[in-house]
Amino acid sequence: MSDGENGLQLRSLVKKSGELELSLVKVPIPEPGPDEVVVRVEATPINPSDLGLLIGPADMSTAKVTGTKEQPVITAKVPEAAMGAMAARLDESMPVGNEGAGVVVSTGSSDDAKALMGETVAMIGGAMYAQYRVLRVNECLPLPDGTTPAEGASCFVNPLTALGMTETMRREGHKALVHTAAASNLGQMLNRICLKDGIPLVNIVRNKEQAGILREIGAKHIVDSTAPSFMDDLTNALAETGATIAFDAIGGGRLAGQILTAMEAAINKTAKAYNRYGSSVHKQVYVYGSLDPRPIELNRGFGMAWGVGGWLLFPFLMKIGPVEGQKLRQRVVAELKTTFASHYTKVVSLQEALQVDNIAVYNKRSTGEKFLINPNKGGSGD
Amino acid sequence: MSDGENGLQLRSLVKKSGELELSLVKVPIPEPGPDEVVVRVEATPINPSDLGLLIGPADMSTAKVTGTKEQPVITAKVPEAAMGAMAARLDESMPVGNEGAGVVVSTGSSDDAKALMGETVAMIGGAMYAQYRVLRVNECLPLPDGTTPAEGASCFVNPLTALGMTETMRREGHKALVHTAAASNLGQMLNRICLKDGIPLVNIVRNKEQAGILREIGAKHIVDSTAPSFMDDLTNALAETGATIAFDAIGGGRLAGQILTAMEAAINKTAKAYNRYGSSVHKQVYVYGSLDPRPIELNRGFGMAWGVGGWLLFPFLMKIGPVEGQKLRQRVVAELKTTFASHYTKVVSLQEALQVDNIAVYNKRSTGEKFLINPNKGGSGD
Repeated sequence: MSDGENGLQLRSLVKKSGELELSLVKVPIPEPGPDEVVVRVEATPINPSDLGLLIGPADMSTAKVTGTKEQPVITAKVPEAAMGAMAARLDESMPVGNEGAGVVVSTGSSDDAKALMGETVAMIGGAMYAQYRVLRVNECLPLPDGTTPAEGASCFVNPLTALGMTETMRREGHKALVHTAAASNLGQMLNRICLKDGIPLVNIVRNKEQAGILREIGAKHIVDSTAPSFMDDLTNALAETGATIAFDAIGGGRLAGQILTAMEAAINKTAKAYNRYGSSVHKQVYVYGSLDPRPIELNRGFGMAWGVGGWLLFPFLMKIGPVEGQKLRQRVVAELKTTFASHYTKVVSLQEALQVDNIAVYNKRSTGEKFLINPNKGGSGD
Repeated sequence: MSDGENGLQLRSLVKKSGELELSLVKVPIPEPGPDEVVVRVEATPINPSDLGLLIGPADMSTAKVTGTKEQPVITAKVPEAAMGAMAARLDESMPVGNEGAGVVVSTGSSDDAKALMGETVAMIGGAMYAQYRVLRVNECLPLPDGTTPAEGASCFVNPLTALGMTETMRREGHKALVHTAAASNLGQMLNRICLKDGIPLVNIVRNKEQAGILREIGAKHIVDSTAPSFMDDLTNALAETGATIAFDAIGGGRLAGQILTAMEAAINKTAKAYNRYGSSVHKQVYVYGSLDPRPIELNRGFGMAWGVGGWLLFPFLMKIGPVEGQKLRQRVVAELKTTFASHYTKVVSLQEALQVDNIAVYNKRSTGEKFLINPNKGGSGD
């Protein structure tokens, strides 16, 4: 494998001097322990949740390229105002990549480990932007026969996040939901789940193209936040669906507050008496992304029964516990080529992932642009 | 009583034409049912929570006085932008006043009702800005001998709100709390509760005078949001107390976000490893007032484990149920002259409550200014 002993691993380093350094380092491939396997990583997505660690607040317009063709080094300036938040990772070279899939190429001595030899498995746990990844047998999710690593690369983050949304909706007593940046891979997945499970879903998009993507896959409620009639359209969709919980990938600006205001207006369409504190129906927005880094602005035209908060997959999984978590994972594997299928616009090698023009595209976090890294494509792979 | 058959009642009316009208109307005193009593109201506070119904968004700089000395009428313009939120109360003359205390002057035929004759009782339930209030026996809270109506006038809103804060803190797993506009009557009460119960409390005030008020009653952690060192002071107080929940009376502006940012900084002072999503400790701000009507602005420098939401006393009481609620009420009565003592800067009649210069003072909602209405002081009382 590779040069037999080493594999390339992508690293992100923020230096005390205020510089981000992205590089590919050669790391030795460890011998697997009795209950471990070595996976040749063949597909690992660049999710918005990876970009915080990979690029962080660095200003990529200042990017410079050094190093070699096989091991390029990218450096870029981190604005001084952002350095405070970097304190805990300064001068620490960090591996990147939340999830991926690949083929087991060597195993430890246990029967469970040996049984995985040659299997295609999905993985989560970081350090996936690498040619090889060692992990314990129980951390691997074996994929059904006929599933490629590319098909299994996004088994965790998007599918479990989308299922986490409908689960959270049910657990907190709501019966329909709202999603923003709704034409994303995640948003399309959520639409497929909601259509299958009969959950009314209001999709908020930012342009006509995105609305078109969703209409094509059968989404019923689509509102465009850039339309002059946005607030009316949203209120009508909320009145029709009864949605009182939203998951917001945008974060900054007025959108979260607008959603709460429209929810309150939808509820009050059927209100029978004046309540000086607004309706008593709890309205919730969970912010799970930060496509807009501006502050959140809440105008509070929505009474007193409201909440806005952060939402993340891992705390959610901790909260529901391993048994419920396993049920969600089983559903993902069973519906991997249908409900939970992901689409990528470009497949790149580790070296190509560090090309400045590629970074410029995936770091925009645009809906519709999604990169998949194949760390064993070209380069020094086997 | 009064003219024998009628009593004055304060009314607030928002007309479709965009005008607020405050008036005193003569209403018949109903015969009490078997299980009811008639209370002569002698003390009823003007709480910030009353002002929303009483004045609402009306522009009191446009106030005009008509009517008679005994029954003045105040009219003022409601800005057009605010009329949408008034839809459900338009052209409906509404009684005002959440809570109060007085003396039972006639009773129904049941033994329970008769037993209250002549007793001083505290009351909650609206329409307290009136000379007489009829209510059911089980809605009265009889006060211990030697308690005046003025002492019992604020038995519910502030005491139960303050206790609701420490209860919410415990129920949601926090061990210390933060309070803003902390030198208010409510804030002083909260300090007395926290000192007595050994709960660390961080008080945020807006000037030195307010800091002085709290220092005098023994508050330990006081930070001034107008000091240049505010964020450092707050972070230090939060690190010392471990407070991860705040109750905010201000609402608008950047304060809620600053509190979350300082909580995160305090937690990270002892963090051991870098987490790209910030600390995993949940940080919560409950907004229960609106002293600043501007939008809430959240800069999100506080990771992903956070929540901001509305908090109101009545939904809280519904949530904990009648048995727990009764325990809180019993504590209030037992400590009415100590922990839960209220202070008023001015006692006014119903007519004086409608004087434009008085409205200008209490409608400012300033810390330290607190009005008590005695509907049977002077005027046409008995």
